[in-house]
Amino acid sequence: MRIDILTLFPQMCENVLKESIIGRARERGLIEISCRDIREYTADKHRRVDDTPYGGGMGMVMQTQPIYDCFKSLCEDSGRRPHLIYMSPQGKTLTQKRAIELSRFEHIALLCGHYEGVDERVLEEIVDEEISVGDYVLTGGELPALVLADCVARMIPGVLSGEEAFTNESHFSSLLEYPQYTRPVEWRGREVPEVLLSGHHANIEKWRREQSLKRTLEKRPEMLEKADLTREDRKYLDRLIKEKEEEKKRKEEQ
Amino acid sequence: MRIDILTLFPQMCENVLKESIIGRARERGLIEISCRDIREYTADKHRRVDDTPYGGGMGMVMQTQPIYDCFKSLCEDSGRRPHLIYMSPQGKTLTQKRAIELSRFEHIALLCGHYEGVDERVLEEIVDEEISVGDYVLTGGELPALVLADCVARMIPGVLSGEEAFTNESHFSSLLEYPQYTRPVEWRGREVPEVLLSGHHANIEKWRREQSLKRTLEKRPEMLEKADLTREDRKYLDRLIKEKEEEKKRKEEQ
Repeated sequence: MRIDILTLFPQMCENVLKESIIGRARERGLIEISCRDIREYTADKHRRVDDTPYGGGMGMVMQTQPIYDCFKSLCEDSGRRPHLIYMSPQGKTLTQKRAIELSRFEHIALLCGHYEGVDERVLEEIVDEEISVGDYVLTGGELPALVLADCVARMIPGVLSGEEAFTNESHFSSLLEYPQYTRPVEWRGREVPEVLLSGHHANIEKWRREQSLKRTLEKRPEMLEKADLTREDRKYLDRLIKEKEEEKKRKEEQ
Repeated sequence: MRIDILTLFPQMCENVLKESIIGRARERGLIEISCRDIREYTADKHRRVDDTPYGGGMGMVMQTQPIYDCFKSLCEDSGRRPHLIYMSPQGKTLTQKRAIELSRFEHIALLCGHYEGVDERVLEEIVDEEISVGDYVLTGGELPALVLADCVARMIPGVLSGEEAFTNESHFSSLLEYPQYTRPVEWRGREVPEVLLSGHHANIEKWRREQSLKRTLEKRPEMLEKADLTREDRKYLDRLIKEKEEEKKRKEEQ
């Protein structure tokens, strides 16, 4: 798979991309990620890429020409037209499901906006999809593009060390993860749950599943609606909910 | 305000923090952001910071001791206990509202997890709050911490050039932004909307407001429920909805 990031801050992106899991996946040839500097494509002799907005207002707006020419050169160099995603608070919110779908594309490109925005016309002309990473305002599209790249890269077969590494993780099975423990057995008076030391695999699996269900119920109950639950899961959840209600009642009576 | 990032990848974070708006805010003394390398605090002679999970399973779990000692040293150095946020898919989803609240803290610290997770006991011992940047899985807490830092930093008075710069932006007023245009007036057959060239400020304001409403209705209708709408806004939205329904009917009749 290939990902290109179109940005005014290629060095910042590059510094992140060379680290961690993406860095390793690149070295192993599992993924090709590059950054393209939009400023390199400006036709302006002062290398400007932005101008004041028509109609007035604060801030600067990125101009059509450098972005368009940057994308055109990417298409020419790669011999195809990548699926172009504009990182924008206006877009559909990124989900794990969409990340998995995107990981199956042969070639995607991520356009990072900055300043007060991007001239609407170039977006209409070349953008295939707008994606937001969440309901908050950021300075530019670079961090969102890096978030998307990380999220998508993890889903490419071979990037993670084992299948299990991603199938078990939060948001993949629509349940939050169970708590994890490692050495030492006791730390500041806190002990590792006994079942984890028992070596009894079926009990460990059961305990972990119940912890996942409990946490999801407590922290993100709406996730349970989409979760793939067994009959045992539902029984356990019903018991938890009942216990909670009884406790609430007991407290009210006091 | 002060933000500390506790991470195994301080260089990667530092490379992002020195750029863009946060870089400028740091230079101007409006914000103090540092990274602390958790590995520097390990008591292990091989500088290990993780171990296999109790109960089995893939991946490695970050141990209690290096994280705890890293946080303790931060408290000692700064002479106070910062509000500690663990960047986790288990946390409450970040919103613009929470970012604004966090920007009023004197000192926050962001703990970045990695590998399969962090030993639960150190989280119970020191973490004040868990925040997730969205419903997707990432390799580590670094990108989420940088997203949070960017989002919070922008809200600190003086960081952005004008008040308007943030009050008008998406998710701040609970409406998506209106489209922006800059020079040239015509580009590849696409023209700037005439009203923006008219110089008539009241008309421009009205057009922009309507564009914001229209986009929010089309792309993120659920945001309108929380939006601060005037009587005129509601009238305009009602008209749009009616028009849409009529168009739908017309299409069905064909």
